[in-house]
Amino acid sequence: MNTYQRIVLASRPQGEVQPSNFRLETVERPVLQAGDILVRNHFLSLDPYMRGRMSAGKSYADPQPLDAPMIGGTVGEIIESKSAQFKVGEFVQAYGGWQTLSLLTPEAQTLVTRIADTTIPLSAYLGVLGMPGQTAWIGLTDILKARAGETVVVSAASGAVGSVVGQLAKLRGCRVVGIAGGAQKCRHVTETLKFDACLDYRQYPDYKRLASALAELAPKGVDAYFDNVGGLILDGVLEHMNAFGRVAVCGMISGYNGEPIPMANPLVILRSRLSITGFIVFEHRDRIPMAQAELVSHVKSQRIVTAETVAQALEAAPEAFIGLLKGKNLGKQLVSLI
Amino acid sequence: MNTYQRIVLASRPQGEVQPSNFRLETVERPVLQAGDILVRNHFLSLDPYMRGRMSAGKSYADPQPLDAPMIGGTVGEIIESKSAQFKVGEFVQAYGGWQTLSLLTPEAQTLVTRIADTTIPLSAYLGVLGMPGQTAWIGLTDILKARAGETVVVSAASGAVGSVVGQLAKLRGCRVVGIAGGAQKCRHVTETLKFDACLDYRQYPDYKRLASALAELAPKGVDAYFDNVGGLILDGVLEHMNAFGRVAVCGMISGYNGEPIPMANPLVILRSRLSITGFIVFEHRDRIPMAQAELVSHVKSQRIVTAETVAQALEAAPEAFIGLLKGKNLGKQLVSLI
Repeated sequence: MNTYQRIVLASRPQGEVQPSNFRLETVERPVLQAGDILVRNHFLSLDPYMRGRMSAGKSYADPQPLDAPMIGGTVGEIIESKSAQFKVGEFVQAYGGWQTLSLLTPEAQTLVTRIADTTIPLSAYLGVLGMPGQTAWIGLTDILKARAGETVVVSAASGAVGSVVGQLAKLRGCRVVGIAGGAQKCRHVTETLKFDACLDYRQYPDYKRLASALAELAPKGVDAYFDNVGGLILDGVLEHMNAFGRVAVCGMISGYNGEPIPMANPLVILRSRLSITGFIVFEHRDRIPMAQAELVSHVKSQRIVTAETVAQALEAAPEAFIGLLKGKNLGKQLVSLI
Repeated sequence: MNTYQRIVLASRPQGEVQPSNFRLETVERPVLQAGDILVRNHFLSLDPYMRGRMSAGKSYADPQPLDAPMIGGTVGEIIESKSAQFKVGEFVQAYGGWQTLSLLTPEAQTLVTRIADTTIPLSAYLGVLGMPGQTAWIGLTDILKARAGETVVVSAASGAVGSVVGQLAKLRGCRVVGIAGGAQKCRHVTETLKFDACLDYRQYPDYKRLASALAELAPKGVDAYFDNVGGLILDGVLEHMNAFGRVAVCGMISGYNGEPIPMANPLVILRSRLSITGFIVFEHRDRIPMAQAELVSHVKSQRIVTAETVAQALEAAPEAFIGLLKGKNLGKQLVSLI
């Protein structure tokens, strides 16, 4: 194997992401310098945040550079090492990007985590035991401060983050209502993930009707809302929040042409004395060990279960990513690279 | 004096408040039962929250009943007492409503505060030492948690709440930028209230241009925003918030036809990891003694100064209230009843 494959950002999307925004390249296997490691990636994680990085606009992170490998979380095996810290044969979680091999310099290794427990499937370290699961734990614990007896709502409920939010909230004694798109996802949310109820938002053409439907599933009102999507769904949940309700804003979809979707009725913030807080997991690193310890325990005992949608081979990544943005996946969207 | 005057809510406004929504009545002086007191009101407070109470819609408080005296804060002198707690000749702050005399039952007396320090003008107990000043203190201290060196922005900066927010923030070592409507108010804000700068929002037709203008007055970005108005001004300030900025939502204007004004770009909540919190002073009673102690000290030493607009006689209240909603007043809007 003297070459490997990678996918670079060929152009920035105008509106919806197109396959032509990506370019598959075959390049020469890199030569390691002192301190470097080379990882053969087994799985690539696809996540909604990548859409934001593809645009050049101001955000909390720098945009993805053109003609460079797309960023992304990976798990894989070290196949070559010039580092004293890492040995060939060890498995690691890293931000290796959309490529079959990743050269990780000492600087890049600050974001590498060694995978010690190989009794858990490797792909879990990109989902419930990776960034999505940590995001769920931090949002529910530190931002929403959800307590037993409260009603928690989570959107994108069948997704990698939402599915963990809801199962964690159930374990903490909350009533949990998911919001998802379509009957199949809603069935998964109630039957497999064991949420108390799930609302199929596609049945409601405006936020007021969505709020009315939610009122039936959350008869005591909503105390805490974990928002992965914004827009009409956020508007609908806000209408049904209890006094002193908390909203954690974890993800938000902009309109197709890049223009933001307004919040319909911000007056509810005052009327119901709400707290709405945006957060990103990377700014809560000090909490990750505690999150991880709880999540590992729940996964091993199967108190938290997960679903995965796995695309095969790197060249399938663009199509899988476009499908993710349209909600075609169930659970964590991965690409298998081996 | 066997009669007194009062103003009742005659009808609920459709859109803008009209003089015909009110009715002036002359009624018989009430007869006291055991425990009651009768107060001759010296000043009536006019406040934006009254607009919300005039409508029948759901809010944090019950609507103002039709044909009953308009609610409102008052200061006055006890002229008759069948209470062991209160004596004739004492001055009190109360929610006496839009009337020249107020009968206060033992139940209503739970919201009565005796005015011990008569070296301070009585009207201050409806402004800086009343609900507006307490709102300012609680919002700045407990919701915004403003710290020395931070940049604080406050809208309706020349008003009863905003003027105290800004002066308190200056005393705590913040850079303070006010937002007000018109050159006269802006001059008052910088020259008399000593804010660092003031933005006349009327010069900016959209929120993006308002944000650009704010960027010049707050070159280090905005860490904390005390919002009294919502709408375009909120949109503009949100664009210029620093990461981890805090917004206290104290007041919000709905559109003329009662429909809410949307928030243009809620994506900034995530992009800048903001916290936006609605609050009302009545739900923070435990903090009022501490607020009041600090405010009294600042007023006595003239570290906080206030402006008042005083209408003469009860029959002038409706017109003064309509003017307040249009921003015609400078500082605290009062009605003198004696």
